[in-house]
Parts: sequence; C-alpha cells; structure tokens
Amino acid sequence: MKQFNDENFLLQTPTAERLYHDYAEHLPIIDYHCHLIPEYVASDHKFENLSKIWLEGDHYKWRAMRTNGVDERYITGKDTTDWEKFEKWAETVPYTMRNPLYHWTHLELKTAFGVDRLLNPSTAKEIYEKCSAMLQEPSHSARGLMLHYNVETVCTTDDPVDTLEYHLKVKNDGFKVKMLPTWRPDKAMAVEDPVAYRKYIDLLSSVSGVAINNFADVIAALQVRHDFFESVGCRLSDHGIEEFYADDYTPEEIETIFKKVYGGTELTQAEISKFKTAMMIEFAIMDHDSGWTQQFHYGAIRNNNSRMMTQLGPDTGFDSIGDFTVAKKMSRFLDMLASRDKLTKTIIYNLNPRDNELVATMLGNFQDGRYGAGKIQFGSGWWFLDQKDGMEKQMNALSVLGLLSRFVGMLTDSRSFLSYPRHEYFRRTLCNLVGNDIENGLLPASEIDFIGREIISKIAYGNAKEYFKF
Amino acid sequence: MKQFNDENFLLQTPTAERLYHDYAEHLPIIDYHCHLIPEYVASDHKFENLSKIWLEGDHYKWRAMRTNGVDERYITGKDTTDWEKFEKWAETVPYTMRNPLYHWTHLELKTAFGVDRLLNPSTAKEIYEKCSAMLQEPSHSARGLMLHYNVETVCTTDDPVDTLEYHLKVKNDGFKVKMLPTWRPDKAMAVEDPVAYRKYIDLLSSVSGVAINNFADVIAALQVRHDFFESVGCRLSDHGIEEFYADDYTPEEIETIFKKVYGGTELTQAEISKFKTAMMIEFAIMDHDSGWTQQFHYGAIRNNNSRMMTQLGPDTGFDSIGDFTVAKKMSRFLDMLASRDKLTKTIIYNLNPRDNELVATMLGNFQDGRYGAGKIQFGSGWWFLDQKDGMEKQMNALSVLGLLSRFVGMLTDSRSFLSYPRHEYFRRTLCNLVGNDIENGLLPASEIDFIGREIISKIAYGNAKEYFKF
Amino acid sequence: MKQFNDENFLLQTPTAERLYHDYAEHLPIIDYHCHLIPEYVASDHKFENLSKIWLEGDHYKWRAMRTNGVDERYITGKDTTDWEKFEKWAETVPYTMRNPLYHWTHLELKTAFGVDRLLNPSTAKEIYEKCSAMLQEPSHSARGLMLHYNVETVCTTDDPVDTLEYHLKVKNDGFKVKMLPTWRPDKAMAVEDPVAYRKYIDLLSSVSGVAINNFADVIAALQVRHDFFESVGCRLSDHGIEEFYADDYTPEEIETIFKKVYGGTELTQAEISKFKTAMMIEFAIMDHDSGWTQQFHYGAIRNNNSRMMTQLGPDTGFDSIGDFTVAKKMSRFLDMLASRDKLTKTIIYNLNPRDNELVATMLGNFQDGRYGAGKIQFGSGWWFLDQKDGMEKQMNALSVLGLLSRFVGMLTDSRSFLSYPRHEYFRRTLCNLVGNDIENGLLPASEIDFIGREIISKIAYGNAKEYFKF
Repeated sequence: MKQFNDENFLLQTPTAERLYHDYAEHLPIIDYHCHLIPEYVASDHKFENLSKIWLEGDHYKWRAMRTNGVDERYITGKDTTDWEKFEKWAETVPYTMRNPLYHWTHLELKTAFGVDRLLNPSTAKEIYEKCSAMLQEPSHSARGLMLHYNVETVCTTDDPVDTLEYHLKVKNDGFKVKMLPTWRPDKAMAVEDPVAYRKYIDLLSSVSGVAINNFADVIAALQVRHDFFESVGCRLSDHGIEEFYADDYTPEEIETIFKKVYGGTELTQAEISKFKTAMMIEFAIMDHDSGWTQQFHYGAIRNNNSRMMTQLGPDTGFDSIGDFTVAKKMSRFLDMLASRDKLTKTIIYNLNPRDNELVATMLGNFQDGRYGAGKIQFGSGWWFLDQKDGMEKQMNALSVLGLLSRFVGMLTDSRSFLSYPRHEYFRRTLCNLVGNDIENGLLPASEIDFIGREIISKIAYGNAKEYFKF
Repeated sequence: MKQFNDENFLLQTPTAERLYHDYAEHLPIIDYHCHLIPEYVASDHKFENLSKIWLEGDHYKWRAMRTNGVDERYITGKDTTDWEKFEKWAETVPYTMRNPLYHWTHLELKTAFGVDRLLNPSTAKEIYEKCSAMLQEPSHSARGLMLHYNVETVCTTDDPVDTLEYHLKVKNDGFKVKMLPTWRPDKAMAVEDPVAYRKYIDLLSSVSGVAINNFADVIAALQVRHDFFESVGCRLSDHGIEEFYADDYTPEEIETIFKKVYGGTELTQAEISKFKTAMMIEFAIMDHDSGWTQQFHYGAIRNNNSRMMTQLGPDTGFDSIGDFTVAKKMSRFLDMLASRDKLTKTIIYNLNPRDNELVATMLGNFQDGRYGAGKIQFGSGWWFLDQKDGMEKQMNALSVLGLLSRFVGMLTDSRSFLSYPRHEYFRRTLCNLVGNDIENGLLPASEIDFIGREIISKIAYGNAKEYFKF
Repeated sequence: MKQFNDENFLLQTPTAERLYHDYAEHLPIIDYHCHLIPEYVASDHKFENLSKIWLEGDHYKWRAMRTNGVDERYITGKDTTDWEKFEKWAETVPYTMRNPLYHWTHLELKTAFGVDRLLNPSTAKEIYEKCSAMLQEPSHSARGLMLHYNVETVCTTDDPVDTLEYHLKVKNDGFKVKMLPTWRPDKAMAVEDPVAYRKYIDLLSSVSGVAINNFADVIAALQVRHDFFESVGCRLSDHGIEEFYADDYTPEEIETIFKKVYGGTELTQAEISKFKTAMMIEFAIMDHDSGWTQQFHYGAIRNNNSRMMTQLGPDTGFDSIGDFTVAKKMSRFLDMLASRDKLTKTIIYNLNPRDNELVATMLGNFQDGRYGAGKIQFGSGWWFLDQKDGMEKQMNALSVLGLLSRFVGMLTDSRSFLSYPRHEYFRRTLCNLVGNDIENGLLPASEIDFIGREIISKIAYGNAKEYFKF
C-alpha cells in the first residue's frame, strides 16, 4: 500500500518516480497565468495568520464549506474570527476526501510549513498556531514564499488602465522573481452596461492621454496602454469569455455601435456580438504585432446565485461550468486572424471537459511553423478542471489528438501565495501518466532519458520558457 | 485471476474488500426512488414464474434481446409462452457480456435464488424451474423479497390524483418495510395535448374536491393533494423533464395560457414553456414549504420509434439519451427559487454523462447551510448510466467537483422486486473506487476507519436516512 | 516492465495475450470502409520510396509536423525532395510519443518491413533506404501488401458517377482480394453551390443515360447507378454529413427546390435542409431495397483554415471535431425510415466522443430481429478517435449501452496500403479490454473459450462477414 503524500505521492510506478525525481522535481516554476495581488508582492506582505493567507478569497474552499453545511457566517461573515473560520474549515477537510482540496491542503501544509499531520478538528489548533507563527517570518512573506517555491516568473492579470506601479516597484527593487503583467481587457468589451462602459472609456482616455471620440480612438488609446504593458515586460493577454465571437462586421457598423453605447443606449444582442468580434480582432492584432501570446478562457457561467451576488459580489464561489456550442465560432474567429496573417501564439482553455477533444483538434487547424513548435496550445486544466482527473483528461486528449511534447504546461490561476505546489501536483501527474505508459510498453523504455529531458522537463519548464520568451 | 461474482466481486484490492464487508455489506436499503407497482406490495403478489418477475416490463432486457436479433414475438408477443420468452432471454445472456445485464442477471440469480450457475441455453430449463418454484414460497413473494433484501424504505412514483390506497393498506398491515409515495405531477404539466389535459384537470378537481376555474384553483387543488401525499408519508417529489424551464412570466399570462389550453386550444411553444416554468415554480414552492426533497430527471428523448410506440405504448425500450443545452436554464430555474428563498433540498439527475461536470458544479452555486450538508445533490447514475461505468463517472465527477462524502447514494429506479442487488452493486463499486484510492496513496490509510464509518456507510445508508427524514 | 511493440504489445494480462494470439491474430481482414485509390490496386502500383507511400496524402502526419513547427515546404511543398520530407518526419516522430502516430509508425515499420528500430533522425537514413528498396519488390506493391496483410475484402469510397473501371479490372484479373465499391453520393446532395450542382447533375445524366428534367429523374438516374454499383459487388453506402437531416417535406416542395437550384439560384438554409432530407430518404430507400448497409459519418467541421484551403484544397489536415446538437434529428431521420419499414442495416459514426453514449443508446431504439443480430451498429472510433483511447471509449460505451458481442468491428478509413496494422491495433485493444475484465473477475474465466470464439473472433472478423454478406 502506498503512503499518502510522501515523496512518491501520485507516482504509481518506479518509472514515474524516476521521471519525477530526475527530470521534474527541481525545476524552477514559470507561473504564466495567476491572480496574485501585485501590491502584496510590492509590499512583501506578511499574512496575519493561516486563515488570512488560506481562506480569504479562496472560493474553492468556500464552496466546499457551503456543501458541507457550514453557515455562511463562518465562511465570509464579518462577525466571526479568523480562528472560528479556520475551525470550520478544519471540520470540513476530512469530508473533502477525493476532492482536490484534500490533496492541495496537505501538500501546501507539508511544502510550505513542514506539517505532516492531517488537518482535522483534533489537529486544527496546533496547525493553525504553528503556521500562523511561521507566517510572521521573512521566509513566509509573499516574497519569501515565492523564493521558497523556486518561482522564476509570475504573470499577474491586469486591466489596461492599471498603472502597473507595483510591477514597476518589484522590478526596481531587484526582486529575483520576475513579476510581469498580463493584459486582460475584459472591461473594454463589456458593452452590456452603457453607463459603466462610458465610465471605463473615459478612464481609459485619461490614463492613455488619448481623447476618445470614435472607435478608432478607443483602439489608439488601448494601443498606448498595450505599448506601456509591453514596456513593463508583458508578453501575454488574456480574455474571459462565455463564447467566441466571430460575426461579420464593417468598420462603419462598429463606429455606429460604439457611438450608440457610448451615448448611453443599450445595444441589441446582435450589436454586442459584432462589437465584441471587432474588439477581439483588434486585440488579437495588437498581440500579433507585439509577438505576444493570447489566451482565451471560455465556457464559464457566472454569478448563478443572484442573492449571493448581491450579498458578496462576483468571484465568491457561485460560478460553474456552462455548455456552449463553440466549434464553428472558435474556428471562424481563428480563421479571421489566420486568413489575414495576424494569428499570434494562442492558448485556448475550455471549462467543460466535454470540449477537450474539440479543442485539441481545433489547434491542428492553425498550427504552422512560424513560431516554432506548438504555436496553438491547449490550455492546462482550468478552474474546476485543475485537478488530477481534469489534468489527466486534458493531457490525454492533447496526447492523442496533438503533441503532448510541445505543451507549455501548468499555471496556478491562483490568488494565493500557497498555490505553487499545484505545479508539483501537475508534474507528478504528468510523470505518472508517462511513467505508466513506459511500464506498460506503450512507450519504449529505451527512450527514458529522451522522454525525461525532451518531454517531461520541457513540459514542466522548458517549453514555457521557450514559448513566452519573458 | 479474480473469480466472477464471488463475495469479492468488483472489489479489486484488499482495502476495497475490507471497506465493503466491514462498512457497507450489511446495511439496510433505503430505495428512495423506484417504480414498484404498489398494488403488488399491498397484495403481497406472488409471481407465476421467473419470466413474470424478470422479463415482464423490463425494457433493458427487451432492448438487449432486440439487439441480439430476437423476434419481437418472443419479447412482448402475446402468442408465445413465458418459457419460450425465457429461452430467448437465456440465449441472449451470453451475448450481453460487458453489459450490466450480465452482472445484474447473475447477481440477482445468486442473491435471490442461490443460483451460482451461469445462465445460458444449457442451464436455462433448470434455472427457470428452480426459480419459478421458489417464487411460489412466501420467502419470494413481493414482500418476502423486500424483507430478504433488508429493505427499510421504498418510495414509489405516483400521480397527484392517485388514491394511494395501496400505500395505506401496506401501512395499516403493519408491514415492516415502509412504502411511501412520491409526488410525480408530470401530467399536471402536460399541456401539449389540450384534450388530455382538460381531462386530467377535471379528474384532479374531482379527486381534490376543489372546483377548478382558473390557474389558482389548479394550484389549490394540487396543494390539497400535496397535503394528502404528505399525510401518507411522502417526502419527495419527482419530475421527468426533457429540459429545465425558466422563462419569465406574469400571473396574468399564466391565467390566459391556462384558460386557452383548458378551453381546448393548442398552445405555442413559448406558451408551453412559460406555463411549465410557472408550474415547476409552484411545485417547488410546495415542496419547499413542506420540507420535501425535489428530484429532477432530465435529458431523455422518448418514444423514438413511432411504429413501436403505436404497437406497444411508452416505456417499452424505445427511449434514449438526448443532447440538450441546459446550463443557463437550470441555473436560472434554481436561482428563481433561491432568490425568493424557496429552494428546498434538490436532486438533479442527468441522462447524458457529458453533463456530469456541469451538474456537479451547478450544485455548488446553491449549497448553503440551511438543511445540513449536501443540500443540493447530484443524482446517482440514472437509467442508462445505472452501471459500473456510469456510477464511477458520476462519483468521480462528484468527488472532484463537490463532496462525495455527502452523497445520498443509490436507488433502483426499478419496477422489479429483484432489483435490490443494484444497491449491492453500487456499494461494491463505491468501495472499490475508494479502496483503490487508499491503496494508491491518494487517501491516507490511517483514516480507513473514518472513511468506512463516515463516508462509505453514510453514502450506502446514513446520508439518505439523515437527508430525507422519512 | 513490458516491452514496446513486441508480440504482446497493448496486451496487459496473460488472458489478453491468450485471447489475441488464439482467437484474433491470424484472422483475415475485412476492411469495409477505406479510401484506397482503386487505380493503384488495378495497376498494382509500386511506390517509389517510403515517403511516397507513407507521407503523401497522410494528413495525420502533416498535422503532427505542423504542430512540431515544421515549415509547410517540408510537408506539402513542391520544392523539397521526398527524402527531405522524410527527414522532417523522422525528426518529428520522437515528439509524437503518446500520439497514435508513434504506435502506428512503429507497427507499420515492423509488420511491413521487419524494421524493429525506432524512427528518429539517427535511424532515418537507414530506414528510408531499406524500406524504399523493399517497396520495389513485388511483395510490397499495392497488391503485394494487401496479400501480405491477409486482406480478404476492401471497400473503397466512390461517387455514383464513377465508372468503377478499376474495380472491374481487379475482379477480372482474378486478384484474390475482393475490392468492392461503396456508394458515396455526397455530391448529389451538395446543393449549396448551384453551378457545381448543375454540372454534377448533367454528368449524372450522361453517365446514367437518364434525361434529367425533374427530381424524379434525378432519383431514377441515381437508381441506375445504384444498380450498376450493386452489379460490381457494392453492398454499402456512405454519407459524410455535418448533422442529420429530418425536415418535413412534400414532393412538390422538393420539385420546386430542385428546379430552383438546377436553374442556378441559391437556396435558403431551409430549402437546403428539406432537399437533403429528401435525398437522404431516397438513398436510404434504395439501400433498404437492395439489402445494403448505410453508413453515416457525422460531426466534422471541415476546411477551417481558409488560407490553407485555398493553397492546398480539402482533406489536407485542416478539419476538426464539431459540436452539433443531433439527438432529435438523428432519431427523427431513423424513425422516418422505420415507420415506413424502410430502415436497412445502418452504421453511425460520430466524431465527437461526447456523443458516444447518445449514439450507443440511439441504436437500441431501432434494433429488431429482421436482419439478425446487431442491425443498427455504433461505428468504430472514426478519424480522430481511431486510436487506443478513442476505441476504448467507443467499445466501453457500446458494451454498457448495447451489445459489444454483435459489433462489426474495425475498418481503416485510410488511403494507405500500410494502414492494415490498424486492424491489429484494434484487435489488441479489444483483447486487452476483455482480457482485463476476465482477470478482474468482471467476466467469468470459465467462459474464455466462448469469449474467444463468439466475441473476440466475431468482432475481429466473423460479424462483419455475416453482416455485410459481400
């Protein structure tokens, strides 16, 4: 019987162990998509206690606690203490068995704090106190943890109007870990709400110094900011979309639509769709011309619980997996770019795993030799799929329908400074899959060193390094 | 090599064996959703022979026989004998290998009749005679079999206009097994056929004693019946729907639509959709106010073969898995209830396994601490998914995207008094999954007793007991 | 540790080995759906070198090379040599690990040429030269390879206007392998382009000798060709469709639509859909009345990359998996035939594996005893799914939702004379699945000989022989 969470955790065969320990374990981390708060890195934030770093803002844990019957007061309530919340979390943990939270929890306790005990009500106090104390040490500040986990680069997620002051500060401080911004212009497309949109455009105008009177001005202002992001080291964009947009449009139509929404009038569904297509095309061209990589995260349905949305706002654990029909629009959008030779390096992340094969084959339609291998990427298991089962399905689909060997690998997508072990989790899962194949004669054992050097270590680190060129 | 269908059937590891034998095997059965004929329990029906209890009404077996090339005369024909039909079934059985029928067949023969031989043409006669003889004993009457299988509670599926006389008789008889009704008001929503609908509404009026002149009267009449069902021990509703309904509507619109259909005029698709939304909301509120659990079985396409529909009627093996787009409507429907604080305990069953992850994440949007843990449930593998592969996929999705530990577990959904071994089949499958995880170090072996007591035995029995409060 | 690609490749247990070697390995091949070039068989074509037989026209390899960053010049370019292309392919091969190409490549090298070495840059020259030399021998001509692989029958894919001269020549030559045509009338339905359509209809008129003035004439002309195909041994039709068509229509409507498109006017989407329904129904009736089997390959989205479409034309590796909603239309189409007693033997192939369960249950709605067992078939993993993972999923879905035992098994769907090892690959995968079940006690070990004779060897060969009656 294998031990839980020991050095060979998730590695079912000797070959898997060898691949992990020899080729993956010690590599630095390139976390090319995350939601860290840049200010925390700039100020080298220290967390008051384990609840602050672990429970605050972690909607995965919140959902588990709600499912476990925990009262909302102990999850997001203002009238309960950090310790009370932690206690409820500790009660929940044993009931998360088979959920990735059970693995992440113990992997994080072990790798960040050296805690080998299982978290449950009887160990909660001891663990809380030990970890909270350690969090006061320089080794466990925001920067301390990044160094501890051997992080080389992180890419945060930022709005075009952001000043990036914290990124600049971190750079100027000479902090060893690169913290780079990512261009996430969702608000520049959010024309559903004319009032909020006008406000955003006015802010964009002010930040960019470009007077905005028409759609061309919007693009000019965004280009100014795109250039600024580039100057701070940005090499990636990201878009959170329900579906892909690929409607036909003319410049005149877009101009009319822009004037309408900027003037405060609500758009029709058809107008929204045309406008978003135009914006996405413009963004894609900017990324292409800068040699950036564009990312698309599609398929979530958000804010499903309107009462809790009113009470807690977005991103509090009330989002889930949608079932959109996407193939033709995704294809058309990519073709609109490819046909005018403006398709840059691209990563597509789906949220519903039923689309894995669709996405994995879509890539192949637009691969070419212009950016080296793996120009179009199938994004690592995202959000709900960011666990052993989801990762395995994504890597299996990519393997049989594309080239796993050219995969740029894992990212945390996380707000937490304790999430870096997800790279370890991913690497173990990868080595286990490939190791099993070798043991089963599906791959030749004679090639183990090639596999280790050219496939495992590249997916764990080298491919991302080569692909993004930070 | 493991033996087929022995005491460790489906249990691949020693830990799986231990979990099953120590924590699951001997628990009573709560069969909270089935289609037993209540009259058979009331009259303690004896079955004339093995065909009568096994083949009559079992559309799973009929489909297999048709696929195996058996002439319809030997499946549902009036001009063939029970023995002739059994003979054709026995010929088919060896060709069902890898289909759950092969497992169920031999599990049922073994557990109900002590038959260890494989069913095939050479054993058919002997098995038929032995089992048919045993069916004449009190131990193998309808009630005898329920006691034999250690059944504690069954919930049948009943129309609001049903008298529930058989439920009352069984209760008055002091039969040890609780047989409770389930509120299944599909016909009260079936406005597609105005003539049949008027007939149904008139019957509802007569049974409830409520004169029906408008929509409010319909609801009042249904409430009378809901109260009556409650008085007979009903704690569950059930709805068979293709898709979820979540259209906006006003009371005035519903009133107009009701009058139109009651007056004999066909409704438009939009009217049907609005009306069904209103009905579902009303039903959900009744269930909420009574503290019941509501169940939704969605996603089947029925009566695909119109010629056979004409010949044999519905539920004769001509239904299959649909591919509806459901996420937004399902979300909206649940939110319509949650936002007015009327969302009761809910179980969602999908028929297309491609929706497993969608459903498993939908739950999380509406979990809260008001009914204890696991308020919103992902229903056990339903109909075509009611087999090892389907159960495993459902439990794996629930595990990684929710809390398996809070799952209320298995039900037979069956018409047959021989279907109780499906609970055994489920428990073995569950123990095998979890046992494998422990053996592979994915769960800590130190926690095996906790896992046995708090997860395995609760899913097998305790969670349903606590959740439904029969 | 198992060896790669040895005699027990893919066979994980002793039982799997036994099933394969005793019951499957030595059976002839019935390749009932492929895209061989008939002229090559007629002329007993010899391939100039390994690139010519292996890389030309193989869009699987092309996609892999593009993904690996190879310049298009080395894939489809006119200005590079066969050897240069081969060199790039050899560089790509090690990076295809876990993709079926890695397995197929080495299985083909081994079984066709006795090459046991792994293909990579260091072995490329030697392998190229050895294989190219062997290709000059009679043993490695088109016919030589078919005999070498113990092929009994192949069914090519042919347009109704085709002369079938090569099929006739091969038959007249007394070549031991039957090469039969398949009726693939996609162009007779391609009314999207009125000009091309008129041209096709005129050609059909000329080839059939039927003057075409109306829709009935079209059908009459096609019937002439259908009869001709029948006379050359055709027993199968095939249709490549995005979705199923099942609109209501009247003969008058179809007549009007035909005149419109034949007259050069573009049709509306609704007209196209009606017309295609009518055509599909007419084709299905022809097939029924001839006792043929009809095949439907649905769900691809084609020519996604318009620039490469312009440059290279169709079928060059720019197609992928779509996400169509199909259940109701597929059901309705089959019911339109079943209800008038015109539903012949049918095979449905889906491209998106998320439809596996849908298709596997759809079959059951239309099975009956009129053509023996397995009248409606779930087609073997198609195109992107034609690999271990895809085959396993298809066979698992078929097993639990239908009868695996009645499956007609594998086909190559290939243009290449080196693709026959895919039958071996399939047989190994099948034996491995079933062998594992026996080892795990999911099937009785006592029945191994029945399983071998009645299930394994029938799926590998006997069921197809019995089903198609070539």
